[in-house]
Amino acid sequence: MTRKDVLVLQDLLGSNKKIAAEIRAKLGEKGIYAVNLLSSPGSGKTTLLEKLCERLRGRFRIGVIEGDIETDRDAERIRAQGVAAWQITTHGACHLEARMVGRVLADVPADLDFLFIENVGNLVCPASFDLGESERWVLLSSPEGDDKPVKYPEAFLSANSLVLTKADLLPHLSFDVDRARREALSINPRLKVFVTSALTGEGLTELEAHLVASLGSLRSGRA
Amino acid sequence: MTRKDVLVLQDLLGSNKKIAAEIRAKLGEKGIYAVNLLSSPGSGKTTLLEKLCERLRGRFRIGVIEGDIETDRDAERIRAQGVAAWQITTHGACHLEARMVGRVLADVPADLDFLFIENVGNLVCPASFDLGESERWVLLSSPEGDDKPVKYPEAFLSANSLVLTKADLLPHLSFDVDRARREALSINPRLKVFVTSALTGEGLTELEAHLVASLGSLRSGRA
Repeated sequence: MTRKDVLVLQDLLGSNKKIAAEIRAKLGEKGIYAVNLLSSPGSGKTTLLEKLCERLRGRFRIGVIEGDIETDRDAERIRAQGVAAWQITTHGACHLEARMVGRVLADVPADLDFLFIENVGNLVCPASFDLGESERWVLLSSPEGDDKPVKYPEAFLSANSLVLTKADLLPHLSFDVDRARREALSINPRLKVFVTSALTGEGLTELEAHLVASLGSLRSGRA
Repeated sequence: MTRKDVLVLQDLLGSNKKIAAEIRAKLGEKGIYAVNLLSSPGSGKTTLLEKLCERLRGRFRIGVIEGDIETDRDAERIRAQGVAAWQITTHGACHLEARMVGRVLADVPADLDFLFIENVGNLVCPASFDLGESERWVLLSSPEGDDKPVKYPEAFLSANSLVLTKADLLPHLSFDVDRARREALSINPRLKVFVTSALTGEGLTELEAHLVASLGSLRSGRA
């Protein structure tokens, strides 16, 4: 990177931070708990959201913002669950930015309980962009390998929770859950760790309970 | 992106293209066949290279450039195969650029046959940066899902070959090889497609034969 590139990036991150703070304030006022989901392509973000929507939709109002480089296939999958979804198609851009989320928020009902924001599949670039979320999840699927936290530290450092996905595939892989957990915690000791499988349902009750408790905390803090 | 961001990016891509052309000319003069490997994190780039090195190292001189955001674990894995490896640690940057490869080339022996360049694990950003390679491979592992070509088209459009990896996991997944192939070819009809498993060896003979034939073509074109 040249000096000019660094200055442009600093500008971009600075203006993103400002817009993210405005979004966070607005969501806080409305009592909406927002989760920004980050991961590599194909780690199971959409499938996890489908399963969480199934569990939450009877008792809570949910909305999902889907970030993709191309296609609205993920938004269609969420809508098939009877859940409102808004697609942001970035046409080549490698991450969501707060201003993109801000534009969609005008269409998001004020009485939502949970707003999930599925970022572009990329374990690198989205980590630098605050979207005004209440909490950030980094997903790591077992086939990706247990060495990813130390190789892609920024995503794990910036997240609040680590959601290990596709635990059902563990018997067929050399993935060491303890190693992944230990190395992720060495980067970010405050990470909550959930081991999940959307296929078998493993860990989803814990993740659901965490979401419900977090929404309660957000609203009691506001009261 | 603002107008200023676009101009900075155009500058960056323009100067990258110039350096990549110089690298391509140098490698061509020396008769070195260079492959740039692109994929999501954890698609199996390093494991595929380990297996190809095992097969090729008796008959050919091989070198590997390892691009990683942090750690030199991948270079260590390649060196354990008795193959020369050079680590480029980008410390946060989401892709390799030609100038990074250019700096390493000074250390690369002139009598190599194959130079493999393992890019940073990212299915988005590396696609825009020519490294002066002879051929670009995009890897897609079966657990990532067969919908990735249409969702991340740039990587598939810019590649010469699509290497489907982890075929051994197919019995445990809903991945449809025909759909992935069909959708990838709809984006880039010139893609060669290889279905492989580093675990069982499936498809590696075909990939090896393709490399050997490509080296022959490069050298006969030079003669």
